Amino acid sequence: MTDWTSLYASRMAGVVGSDIRERAKLLDARQIIHLGGGLPDPEIFPYARLAQASAAIWADPARARTALQYAPSEGHGPLREWIAGHMTARGVPCTVDNILITNGSQQGLDFIAKLLLSPGDTAMVEIPSFIGALRAFDAYQPQYVGLPEDAEDWADPALGGAKFCYVGPDFRNPTGTTMTLAEREALLDLAERTGIAIVEDGCYEDLRYDGAPLPSLIARAVARHGSIESAPVLHTGTFSKTVAPSLRVGWIAGPAEAIRKLVLIKQASDLATSAFNQMLLLDVVREGLGDMIAEACRVYRGRRDAMLATLARVMPEGVTWTEPGGGLYIWLDLPERIDATLLSQRALAEHHVSAISGAAFYPKGAANVTPRHNCLRLSFSMIGAEPARIGVERLAALVREMMAESAVAA
Amino acid sequence: MTDWTSLYASRMAGVVGSDIRERAKLLDARQIIHLGGGLPDPEIFPYARLAQASAAIWADPARARTALQYAPSEGHGPLREWIAGHMTARGVPCTVDNILITNGSQQGLDFIAKLLLSPGDTAMVEIPSFIGALRAFDAYQPQYVGLPEDAEDWADPALGGAKFCYVGPDFRNPTGTTMTLAEREALLDLAERTGIAIVEDGCYEDLRYDGAPLPSLIARAVARHGSIESAPVLHTGTFSKTVAPSLRVGWIAGPAEAIRKLVLIKQASDLATSAFNQMLLLDVVREGLGDMIAEACRVYRGRRDAMLATLARVMPEGVTWTEPGGGLYIWLDLPERIDATLLSQRALAEHHVSAISGAAFYPKGAANVTPRHNCLRLSFSMIGAEPARIGVERLAALVREMMAESAVAA
Repeated sequence: MTDWTSLYASRMAGVVGSDIRERAKLLDARQIIHLGGGLPDPEIFPYARLAQASAAIWADPARARTALQYAPSEGHGPLREWIAGHMTARGVPCTVDNILITNGSQQGLDFIAKLLLSPGDTAMVEIPSFIGALRAFDAYQPQYVGLPEDAEDWADPALGGAKFCYVGPDFRNPTGTTMTLAEREALLDLAERTGIAIVEDGCYEDLRYDGAPLPSLIARAVARHGSIESAPVLHTGTFSKTVAPSLRVGWIAGPAEAIRKLVLIKQASDLATSAFNQMLLLDVVREGLGDMIAEACRVYRGRRDAMLATLARVMPEGVTWTEPGGGLYIWLDLPERIDATLLSQRALAEHHVSAISGAAFYPKGAANVTPRHNCLRLSFSMIGAEPARIGVERLAALVREMMAESAVAA
Repeated sequence: MTDWTSLYASRMAGVVGSDIRERAKLLDARQIIHLGGGLPDPEIFPYARLAQASAAIWADPARARTALQYAPSEGHGPLREWIAGHMTARGVPCTVDNILITNGSQQGLDFIAKLLLSPGDTAMVEIPSFIGALRAFDAYQPQYVGLPEDAEDWADPALGGAKFCYVGPDFRNPTGTTMTLAEREALLDLAERTGIAIVEDGCYEDLRYDGAPLPSLIARAVARHGSIESAPVLHTGTFSKTVAPSLRVGWIAGPAEAIRKLVLIKQASDLATSAFNQMLLLDVVREGLGDMIAEACRVYRGRRDAMLATLARVMPEGVTWTEPGGGLYIWLDLPERIDATLLSQRALAEHHVSAISGAAFYPKGAANVTPRHNCLRLSFSMIGAEPARIGVERLAALVREMMAESAVAA
């Protein structure tokens, strides 16, 4: 009799499904007010453009053949060219040799960890960090170390020895905060001093609702070094937030030397991304990425503004939150005596509102990191202003209730 | 300055691109006669069915929304149901809980290795073995051991200790050979005796040109144990050979306990397979998988017959080959004094014919395996009978030339 548990690799120890996800399955999904997930709103997907692009591919026998045959592991050539042009326009002069197509940026993070991490190697991550990145890295069994919150500490010589430092400079998941230009420069200083690579998650950079864009880390690195080939940065990008997630098309940009290795990882992992999806994607972004970004920003900016206004109106004193200039998330700081995990459990069970406890966003076993227990991540992306208002009001009422309970207990 | 080479994980040591692939890039691809790759023939792709299925999805707003939003990591529910029914009809009673959707079966092999292999664990593989499986497994740094060629040796007690044994029972890549029913039973005996898992690559099982199908290993295991839940088998399947590869849809079937873990691996690796592609696939297989399989078999059977006839006509004495009952490959045994790697290099450079040296299909560092240097894999899938005939004639002439040269040298 096969004992599967005894066969699992050591990386599977402690790998369990999300509690929240499992509990949410027990409820009728339709009655939950989703402030937890960060799914894009299907209202902004470019249906008509994609329908037209599909029909055009099927109508052309040569294109249809290309669409259904295996694509090169490095990606569909014309899409790689388009992305190289897109990166060049954003201050990262590069060619197709600097671009690998991936199934969304999640696969890019997985591949970068596969490229760089042996068991026991050190991965530096910002604190708190995108949970999907942590789960991708976990599979390669790193030791984690937190990037200190204050950039002044980044000059600490003890920070060396990691393989890479993972950051989301723009409107990052989960806090919605953005690195200043000075912080970007300081991080590149750290990379240059220590020889560690920077892994830059660019997935929210197009979802900017206020102000002018800052240069990406990879753009700054290219400016410093004169060429992408000597930049210490691998940058992941995606069309999941600006076009649609289920085409599953993203990319890694970086020095050709590292991209060549990543192509071999792609080949061994799933051969290639769907050629059909890459061709569809290329057709719609070539025609209208700017319009799609503008529409996404219009919709999400309104939702962010509405949620920030509701929070200001209903949250009790002692609760603070970030005011993101873009992205999909707001990060709440609750009073110390509130356990956000319990709060999120009660919010779902008693009030049918999902929200994610901040505790989920800390790496396992990082010696220099103390997970916060009193933070909550809210997303404003998935639902309209009215249910979002109701959801935040219910959360605020629950926070007041838990504050009152803890005051009695104390 | 970042020294990327010093940052790479130990798994990347020795990972290099395929020489043949690199050399082929230097030639004009249009003039190469491809007997090397095993790409499906685009003539058999179901263009009209897919065009109709695409249009139907875009025409229905609710389906279009589902197609573009993130799918569940375990896969699009209705497709999992269809595959569970498909497996049930093939002697593997199961439910959606036994099915994970993957990006083709290549990703299934990667995930199974990620589930089971820690560095230094032992992976048993049949000899020679599918190169894509070996490259997927390599990333998890196993020790390899070869499954002995003769099933009588499978009772050897020294064969224990591996995490899994990887086999392709039907028309396997690269040899085109098929396990007998007695061998299937003997392999399950081995699994039961030692507690190792069987990883069954089912990617060619539908491409049968002669005779009646044999039960899959997972079907025999279910028959022995009464339930898939106690079967010691993970089975990978794909629609890449019967529908089209670039939808990138395959699956893993196995005990729910292992599938649950594999779902978490999928989530951390690339979140989910494209919902759009899964819906397209479901539409076309529900309507016409039987027809598509019949058409693929009709085309490839004719090509196999033609290539076997050409080989019999032109190959010199001392060369033998397999006569596959299905699949895409024929395996040639050349005289001992012929180096097949040199032959394949000269065939490409001097005669513009691609063929793969058998040496590529052996795992690195397996103590009980001696790679054969005088074997060649030919594929009959990609090109019509006439260029295939020319390609095999050129190869035969080159074999005669090299035999004559080696006779002079001796």
